[in-house]
Amino acid sequence: MKSSLNGASWVRQMFEEGEVMKRVYGEENVFDFSLGNPNLEPPESLKKALKALADRPIPGMHRYMQNSGYSETRKAIAEYLKEESGLSFEEKHVVMTVGAAGGLNIVLKAILDEGDEVIVPSPYFMEFRFYIENSGGRMRLVDTREDFSLNLSEIEKAIGVKTKAILINSPNNPTGAVYDQGSLEKLGELLKKKSQELGKTLYLITDEAYRRIVFDQIRLPIAFHHYPHTIRVTSHSKDLSLAGERIGYIAVSPLCEEADELISAIIFALRTLGFVNAPALMQRLVAPLQRNSVNIGEYEEKRNLFYSALTSFGYDVVKPQGAFYLFPKALIEDDLAFVKELQLKRILTVPGRGFGKPGYFRIAYAVDKKVIEAALPGFREVAEKHSTGKK
Amino acid sequence: MKSSLNGASWVRQMFEEGEVMKRVYGEENVFDFSLGNPNLEPPESLKKALKALADRPIPGMHRYMQNSGYSETRKAIAEYLKEESGLSFEEKHVVMTVGAAGGLNIVLKAILDEGDEVIVPSPYFMEFRFYIENSGGRMRLVDTREDFSLNLSEIEKAIGVKTKAILINSPNNPTGAVYDQGSLEKLGELLKKKSQELGKTLYLITDEAYRRIVFDQIRLPIAFHHYPHTIRVTSHSKDLSLAGERIGYIAVSPLCEEADELISAIIFALRTLGFVNAPALMQRLVAPLQRNSVNIGEYEEKRNLFYSALTSFGYDVVKPQGAFYLFPKALIEDDLAFVKELQLKRILTVPGRGFGKPGYFRIAYAVDKKVIEAALPGFREVAEKHSTGKK
Repeated sequence: MKSSLNGASWVRQMFEEGEVMKRVYGEENVFDFSLGNPNLEPPESLKKALKALADRPIPGMHRYMQNSGYSETRKAIAEYLKEESGLSFEEKHVVMTVGAAGGLNIVLKAILDEGDEVIVPSPYFMEFRFYIENSGGRMRLVDTREDFSLNLSEIEKAIGVKTKAILINSPNNPTGAVYDQGSLEKLGELLKKKSQELGKTLYLITDEAYRRIVFDQIRLPIAFHHYPHTIRVTSHSKDLSLAGERIGYIAVSPLCEEADELISAIIFALRTLGFVNAPALMQRLVAPLQRNSVNIGEYEEKRNLFYSALTSFGYDVVKPQGAFYLFPKALIEDDLAFVKELQLKRILTVPGRGFGKPGYFRIAYAVDKKVIEAALPGFREVAEKHSTGKK
Repeated sequence: MKSSLNGASWVRQMFEEGEVMKRVYGEENVFDFSLGNPNLEPPESLKKALKALADRPIPGMHRYMQNSGYSETRKAIAEYLKEESGLSFEEKHVVMTVGAAGGLNIVLKAILDEGDEVIVPSPYFMEFRFYIENSGGRMRLVDTREDFSLNLSEIEKAIGVKTKAILINSPNNPTGAVYDQGSLEKLGELLKKKSQELGKTLYLITDEAYRRIVFDQIRLPIAFHHYPHTIRVTSHSKDLSLAGERIGYIAVSPLCEEADELISAIIFALRTLGFVNAPALMQRLVAPLQRNSVNIGEYEEKRNLFYSALTSFGYDVVKPQGAFYLFPKALIEDDLAFVKELQLKRILTVPGRGFGKPGYFRIAYAVDKKVIEAALPGFREVAEKHSTGKK
């Protein structure tokens, strides 16, 4: 355990350095793009639902329920998933969790045996490594293409006898990339072929925490359509801005063979890992809000503003189609040194090495628009310095 | 994972069989003592605090905070612990958790290396085994005495080079036993001596989820006074009747050497096991309620009623001084067969083998008084049957 402390995430380190800087320079003078902490308030519908419950508490509403969560909540989510996918989701396919992070740990505990490998496209959310290793698994990174799309031939090469699952995250943290329908189709075909070749079931785990946050009117493909052994893990941290409340769910595809056994293992892991159940009050609040979300247009506006400005300053950025991250190339090779340069302008970002991609840096822009506007001159000055240097 | 499913707890199995029986016989005709699910409503002060927050939401109150929890909540708890113990607890010694179950998993992850042993007095809360094994540890059970008090000479024999910690739970689930001051003093002495002999720090982990629920005006001893390397894990599931909300905390003794390093490891485990932080809203609600609790007198009244009746029917029961459990001897050797006999009277209990103690059974009496009253004839009939049989 002691040695793992050195691996503690760059995100949290930057976030905490930022807290110190804010005390020194004043909060309004530090431009904090370190942590993906949604700045939008939950929708009014959630506030109203909370007020209604507080005004007229339901007897027993804070007690234990079954480990998998309230029946009504799971039914409401199953209904939504059925509508979205056309597949026959039922209550039993949905398990309420302590956020997506809790959900991922549970799914991995349920499916992994010691030494099993989980393939993760890189750049990747750095906590995945710990989640996989917590259950005795090993993470196998596979680089994405230059535009951060899935590299299917590399994924194919990485699949071997020890592979148990592939864990994808789309829209992606840290890149904002969205995997398109074609790539999910091909991924599904590949997993079917390899499952057959290897004589065992490979799982597709989709971390869809940012599912609702997509731009340019694109429709996110539905992984359930392309591979039967798909397990979706998601949360309401971003779509309802409830990150601190730890409320999410796992949905197992009704097409999954041995779905019942898998779900039993998931519920067992939920219980014995000490989650016990998802927070009761939040389960009630999110049940009727499956079709609600914060105003995604605000995130799109911020992406447009930030992306246009950075490209005009000469930054090399793949235009993200979702989430609330930008992942530009650093203007010098050493991403950590570059992040430190930005820090001198009181701009907090995270070096790409924290996501398995040195030479890049991550900007989390779920902040007030005025923070972005105030930070842009700093980004320009740093860009100008390096452009002069190159001439 | 598949094989572990067979170990799934008897408590949940009985609880779920009970749900089926309730559908068949009607809820009021099934006397469910299977799950320790507090029936009392949270105190009025909590309801008021929830209403105040719902009426006037604080901007950002559902966002991420630091992993260890809100500063104000941790300060309030540290203040309370300081008052209780006279020790110099500060904010940094308190880490907010997703219930006590989450807290225990985190502490064990933070201190255990593969193969380390954790001593657990038996009978014991059966989830401990999973919690310990989740972090690569091994549980070593040590029987308590006939009256369920700590057997210190057996604990001494069990401590060896692989021992890393002892995990005690007082007031105890399943027995309701409370470890007295004398036994904690001796345990502290033993751990000091053994730590020195072994040349390493042994930890005392105290699961104090039932700390506030004690009877007969006894004062629960404070483990922090008797051993410096003490880590308290607790929750507000029982004292504030918030079991479904998953809100608890870890408190590391200020006297613990290397406290800062230990706390860092605890926060790292909290984050990477996927808990991330304790639910935000509940953190706010419990902060000012550290000196509040449900009416403990109601539990004491139920204990008195149940204990007197059972002993008058001829059951052999150690009188519990806390929690809300009775742990009588079964009237036949086979505790599972005995539990089935009670089930025929529509009384749901849990066989002692679920707690490492065959030949006994557990009654969880955090239920309405009228459920206890309605169940007593069934307990009497079963007792009479066996007493006739013996003549």
